[in-house]
Amino acid sequence: MLSPFFFLLEQPMLKRLLTAALALAASMYGTVAHAQADPLSSWNDGPSKARIVAFVQAVTQPGGKDFVAPAERIAVFDNDGTLWSEQPMYFQLAFAIDRVQAVIEKNPDLAKRPSLRAAAKRDLKALAATGEKGIAELIAVTHAGTTSEEFAQIVRDWAKTAQHPTLKRPYTQLTYVPMRELLDYLRANGFKTYIVTGGGIEFVRVFSEELYGVPPEQVVGSTIKTKYEVRNGTPVIVRLPEIDFIDDKAGKPVGIHKFIGKRPIAAFGNSDGDFEMLEWTTSAPGARLGVLVHHDDAAREFAYDRTSHIGKLARGLDEGPKRGWTIVSIKNDWKAVYPAPR
Amino acid sequence: MLSPFFFLLEQPMLKRLLTAALALAASMYGTVAHAQADPLSSWNDGPSKARIVAFVQAVTQPGGKDFVAPAERIAVFDNDGTLWSEQPMYFQLAFAIDRVQAVIEKNPDLAKRPSLRAAAKRDLKALAATGEKGIAELIAVTHAGTTSEEFAQIVRDWAKTAQHPTLKRPYTQLTYVPMRELLDYLRANGFKTYIVTGGGIEFVRVFSEELYGVPPEQVVGSTIKTKYEVRNGTPVIVRLPEIDFIDDKAGKPVGIHKFIGKRPIAAFGNSDGDFEMLEWTTSAPGARLGVLVHHDDAAREFAYDRTSHIGKLARGLDEGPKRGWTIVSIKNDWKAVYPAPR
Repeated sequence: MLSPFFFLLEQPMLKRLLTAALALAASMYGTVAHAQADPLSSWNDGPSKARIVAFVQAVTQPGGKDFVAPAERIAVFDNDGTLWSEQPMYFQLAFAIDRVQAVIEKNPDLAKRPSLRAAAKRDLKALAATGEKGIAELIAVTHAGTTSEEFAQIVRDWAKTAQHPTLKRPYTQLTYVPMRELLDYLRANGFKTYIVTGGGIEFVRVFSEELYGVPPEQVVGSTIKTKYEVRNGTPVIVRLPEIDFIDDKAGKPVGIHKFIGKRPIAAFGNSDGDFEMLEWTTSAPGARLGVLVHHDDAAREFAYDRTSHIGKLARGLDEGPKRGWTIVSIKNDWKAVYPAPR
Repeated sequence: MLSPFFFLLEQPMLKRLLTAALALAASMYGTVAHAQADPLSSWNDGPSKARIVAFVQAVTQPGGKDFVAPAERIAVFDNDGTLWSEQPMYFQLAFAIDRVQAVIEKNPDLAKRPSLRAAAKRDLKALAATGEKGIAELIAVTHAGTTSEEFAQIVRDWAKTAQHPTLKRPYTQLTYVPMRELLDYLRANGFKTYIVTGGGIEFVRVFSEELYGVPPEQVVGSTIKTKYEVRNGTPVIVRLPEIDFIDDKAGKPVGIHKFIGKRPIAAFGNSDGDFEMLEWTTSAPGARLGVLVHHDDAAREFAYDRTSHIGKLARGLDEGPKRGWTIVSIKNDWKAVYPAPR
């Protein structure tokens, strides 16, 4: 019975599928096929890790009071500050600023606009001073006016060469190893993992599969309006300079409901922009998991919370523990932060 | 090796999973584990069926020039007129009309509005005469003002008792058997199947899993705006009386791009409202499948096309064949239309 299929195990995709099937079988029927290495080996033993593991065991325990059918095992992850870093500025803002320079080179007249001139000079203070109108201009010039396929290519090209200003590494290497382990661990236990980001959906989709194993259709995010048109016989989706939906704060449950149509049972964030997502996730009956990553490790990453201009975390620190949410300390809970430099 | 897991095969979910794994293995590696019954047994042999089967074999043939990796095997289906009937009116309009009566019973003042009075009397001509404003009123009164959970329950309750006006069967029994077979057949070959409907996303999600095996997160549709709020300590998603997005005509590629972020390789529709979806799907390089269901069977279903007020199909009939699209004749291609009455 085994031999005709054995060669298939050499194929990575089928191997992943069979591994998932066995893990699901194990999780559904309490059967463990073989002893496993610790799937959360980058996490220090402690209350955060114990809480996560206890939750997963509870919802996958067949016949247990907290058992959740696989179809309802929806886990949602914020991206900026939860799956990769967000300091000293959102990576997508770094992209916009890098891109505005390319755009101005092609069309120097644009440098007359204060917002774009400020962005081109990397003068964040001057950029902020141009207000909402200035930010809208920056988005219009850097994120719209192309087709969706062109935009994805622009982002891919940017990511190949762009470097974080202080860490001097490609942005794509600044993901958190313990969170990637967590994504894998949840998927091995029958969870469907989603990214729910305040960032642009088409920006994050470029990276989601490669960095996190999350396919594009499982990314929920902010959107700009787009338009379908046929150009010289070729259909394209054109990106328009108009905001469609902001997937942040109270927008996160709205985005989850619109895109997924199911209420998650686990939510992971790091800022007060994730508060409503965790609230929506954890306030329904049954076992629920809410986790906030607390950036308290200036030595290995960044330390910021209540007064930060990015990723502010105050209400979550105050109310989270009372609501049963887990506050993960990067300093104490994570053995590693970033992958080893390549 | 086999025996410790054999009992698991009794469990329907794992069985489905293993069946899917084997089907995927077969489709990826050209290995067929055992002879199968015809997965499209409700289709008559003929060019339509042959075209569909040839496409699926081409994109799943390992090493073939048209092979498509499973992650890119996205198939999109219109709902009204493609997966279930849409005459003499969209089933969702029937829902709105049934519901307006319940709403007016609770709040008789609403009957003063011409649109709602017309709907309550099932006078479609008078309703149409109230124009866009009237339809907007009807939607506001019947589709908004509740939480999303309440709305789903209202739809479920309606479906239990509502009957088609001429066929005298529950709407949920008016799905097309050959199209359900096709959904199963595509999934068994590693496709991810989506519904892309002009109807309301929250309406269709109530039925999608049970009727079509399509989970809620794989339904793309028209949306109204919603708002997250905390009512007496309980978070809810509230449905607002404002259109957010119309997933029809050129809106279908836009909706597909927004929700899925991938270009499908197969698209199934029945009206000119699906034209752009098929165009977008079939105009990229590689093997592509575009199918239009032609309603030409007055005896078993309905016969309508160029002049119909619902599901008008004219451009698709004229241009479809030149574009390589398959026109399915219900009369000639389908052995059965609806499931046998229960």
